[in-house]
Amino acid sequence: MAKIAIIPGSFDPIPNGQLDVMARSAKLFDKVYVAVLNNTVKSPLFSADERVALIQRVTKGFDNVYAESFAGLLVDFAKSKNAQFIIKGLRAVSDYEYECQMALANRNLAPDIETFFITSSPNYSYLSSSIVKELARHNAPLENLVPNEIVQDIYNKFNKI
Amino acid sequence: MAKIAIIPGSFDPIPNGQLDVMARSAKLFDKVYVAVLNNTVKSPLFSADERVALIQRVTKGFDNVYAESFAGLLVDFAKSKNAQFIIKGLRAVSDYEYECQMALANRNLAPDIETFFITSSPNYSYLSSSIVKELARHNAPLENLVPNEIVQDIYNKFNKI
Amino acid sequence: MAKIAIIPGSFDPIPNGQLDVMARSAKLFDKVYVAVLNNTVKSPLFSADERVALIQRVTKGFDNVYAESFAGLLVDFAKSKNAQFIIKGLRAVSDYEYECQMALANRNLAPDIETFFITSSPNYSYLSSSIVKELARHNAPLENLVPNEIVQDIYNKFNKI
Amino acid sequence: MAKIAIIPGSFDPIPNGQLDVMARSAKLFDKVYVAVLNNTVKSPLFSADERVALIQRVTKGFDNVYAESFAGLLVDFAKSKNAQFIIKGLRAVSDYEYECQMALANRNLAPDIETFFITSSPNYSYLSSSIVKELARHNAPLENLVPNEIVQDIYNKFNKI
Amino acid sequence: MAKIAIIPGSFDPIPNGQLDVMARSAKLFDKVYVAVLNNTVKSPLFSADERVALIQRVTKGFDNVYAESFAGLLVDFAKSKNAQFIIKGLRAVSDYEYECQMALANRNLAPDIETFFITSSPNYSYLSSSIVKELARHNAPLENLVPNEIVQDIYNKFNKI
Amino acid sequence: MAKIAIIPGSFDPIPNGQLDVMARSAKLFDKVYVAVLNNTVKSPLFSADERVALIQRVTKGFDNVYAESFAGLLVDFAKSKNAQFIIKGLRAVSDYEYECQMALANRNLAPDIETFFITSSPNYSYLSSSIVKELARHNAPLENLVPNEIVQDIYNKFNKI
Repeated sequence: MAKIAIIPGSFDPIPNGQLDVMARSAKLFDKVYVAVLNNTVKSPLFSADERVALIQRVTKGFDNVYAESFAGLLVDFAKSKNAQFIIKGLRAVSDYEYECQMALANRNLAPDIETFFITSSPNYSYLSSSIVKELARHNAPLENLVPNEIVQDIYNKFNKI
Repeated sequence: MAKIAIIPGSFDPIPNGQLDVMARSAKLFDKVYVAVLNNTVKSPLFSADERVALIQRVTKGFDNVYAESFAGLLVDFAKSKNAQFIIKGLRAVSDYEYECQMALANRNLAPDIETFFITSSPNYSYLSSSIVKELARHNAPLENLVPNEIVQDIYNKFNKI
Repeated sequence: MAKIAIIPGSFDPIPNGQLDVMARSAKLFDKVYVAVLNNTVKSPLFSADERVALIQRVTKGFDNVYAESFAGLLVDFAKSKNAQFIIKGLRAVSDYEYECQMALANRNLAPDIETFFITSSPNYSYLSSSIVKELARHNAPLENLVPNEIVQDIYNKFNKI
Repeated sequence: MAKIAIIPGSFDPIPNGQLDVMARSAKLFDKVYVAVLNNTVKSPLFSADERVALIQRVTKGFDNVYAESFAGLLVDFAKSKNAQFIIKGLRAVSDYEYECQMALANRNLAPDIETFFITSSPNYSYLSSSIVKELARHNAPLENLVPNEIVQDIYNKFNKI
Repeated sequence: MAKIAIIPGSFDPIPNGQLDVMARSAKLFDKVYVAVLNNTVKSPLFSADERVALIQRVTKGFDNVYAESFAGLLVDFAKSKNAQFIIKGLRAVSDYEYECQMALANRNLAPDIETFFITSSPNYSYLSSSIVKELARHNAPLENLVPNEIVQDIYNKFNKI
Repeated sequence: MAKIAIIPGSFDPIPNGQLDVMARSAKLFDKVYVAVLNNTVKSPLFSADERVALIQRVTKGFDNVYAESFAGLLVDFAKSKNAQFIIKGLRAVSDYEYECQMALANRNLAPDIETFFITSSPNYSYLSSSIVKELARHNAPLENLVPNEIVQDIYNKFNKI
């Protein structure tokens, strides 16, 4: 049976730590779906479609990684892909606690899908999407923080605003 | 390529939460090796051989779960089994921080082996081996805390002492 | 002297873990007041009056549990009820830190009223009101997450919106 | 029904923060039993009997506070006193996590006895028994850290050794 | 070389714990700049200019403490003052994790400027600006929570609203 | 007035993260004393004198860094050097909580000496002395984990045992 993993997130935009999680998952699983949360409540910097496109661009070297946006319950998306694994890259201890709660809620909804946590590379441990945006807003250099291919896209967003 | 997972631990003795991690891993991976840490420093209640035997007894319903003891580095044991996954069941936030450090140290030694954390079932979240032993020492009931098949083995240890 | 406890919260809506705290408090104290925070800033799913009514419905089996809404300082509400105890059910470690700060601020205002923390039942530890609402928004099953008597009320709110 | 509380601990020796918990509990409950853990494994500074005597000395102003040592399970001691409450003063977030696990284990053994956590006074939040002993070992001043009546007893222990 | 420190923050308004950090820094460093974050996104109680004026008022006893507002990146402000030190007073464990991430992001931008964390006085550990505002909103006493010289300024804001 | 800092620790042996803290402190302070805790209770791998010699070897490029061992209270050692700063490199959130307690205890003993916390470089965040020793025990490579100049000293210790 193929081992299929989902990597859910907002990815607005994708920091290097998250790309690292995708790259490592690509080696371990048969298929990896990056599931972009299409959350209508918050006002994202990039639309869900733009985020899917950015992820496709930075993961094009992996032929078993796919990006899609989803609305609704994560476990429903996972079932639609026959995925058995939900992968969450964790940066901080406080992330862990919230993600545990989500993992247990998801296990209650879909006992056959398991959430696995993976520790971010320590180089990237401080790099949330929020910090990336805060830095971009003030024209700080983003090299080494996000994939090089998307640096200009991020700057463009702030010049537009 | 077969997906092979290692579940390392002391398992002295095995609480229900750890058995639950093994059961869930058995469904997700092709082979699961329970790696009993043969740590010569601490004075365990059960010898490493006894712990392997107890785990074999409680996992005999799973035909892809194997128990062995190991000394030395975990990543060397994992390589000897061609495992790509190290699975750690976490109960508490404080567990997480220490385990992250171990995961990063292991990734440094063996970049192709990934540590995944899995949240213990909340029913068992308070159940460490230490608490099991403390309860057993005072003849408290152990049913629902450890697998029923090993309750008597634990009591026997304390009557011997 | 009667032992009187306050259980403050938003309860929007009440998850099973909070009902469990109420049920256990009802056995320990002479009177228990569930104090529904009438916070005008956030936009709740249920109005304060509706939340009081829902709590009254799910606690009607306890003849010493009362629900009321309050605005203003919690310690003033507690004094108006001659309560000596504020009870907070905690789910997570991160809850604890914030609640400690509130407890110390309240002790500074009213040294004779004590805040006691009680650990949620592990079955419910992942169940915040936010997760309940998120699940309800996507029509996920709510049985075992909130009291059965209020499941339909929650679904109704989302169909209205 | 009388409200009876147990305050368990090692109290080797008692820091001011723990005395503060006892004083506040004395006002809230009808009877308070300070339960000195007679743990034969560790090598305490004061024997269990000495610790009971020190606590009796510093709580002699409260006529509803009693100190006793106990071995065995805490819930059995609590039952023998008809206590419904176990009170734990918490200093740190990390204390909280361990104490939650003990509280849940105790609830499993005795569902009618509830563990309540109380936040230590911030003045004393850094004051563990270990720090007190470390300071005493080097003849640092102990005033304001432990009750004045026991300062000399602690110094005496270190001069003896 | 003069040792120059920056104390950044929102200070909306300044709680006693933050004043304590300023007072202690004033003794240790040659110059201390209090850097008031002029964040246009949130709606503060006091404008950035008002916050600078309040800090100047409460620190007028220190002749090496200066208050200014800033927009943009903290490290750029620090460089403009030739500061080598960023000082953050921490109240809670959860503060620490977020502040670590900021410290590492800032170190990446400016390796010669170091962020140092200092533990708030335990008396003030529960006192965030948010709690001060919540108390002021309900006319609770603010003495001992914020510097006496600014109590009336805070009350005035809430009467205006 | 010269700014003098103390960096206390066990350093048994010194991991790269601690060397990084020393290097950065050397640039910020006029003098830096590395204070090797001569703790007679634990059984260290290296004697206090050996640890002082190892630190002197790896810091010989800094002409304002000095290493000494000390017994007794840290604040007494700091006073003897006229130091105003105690610097602690923190790796983990759980480190922070314990170190806060020590910082507050030390402030109580010596209000004019301040403890400052500094975040370890994320590359080294998982690297405690314990993990270094565990790896050395099993002949794992230590390059990039400890300063190259002391790798052989560590291996020698384990071959001796």
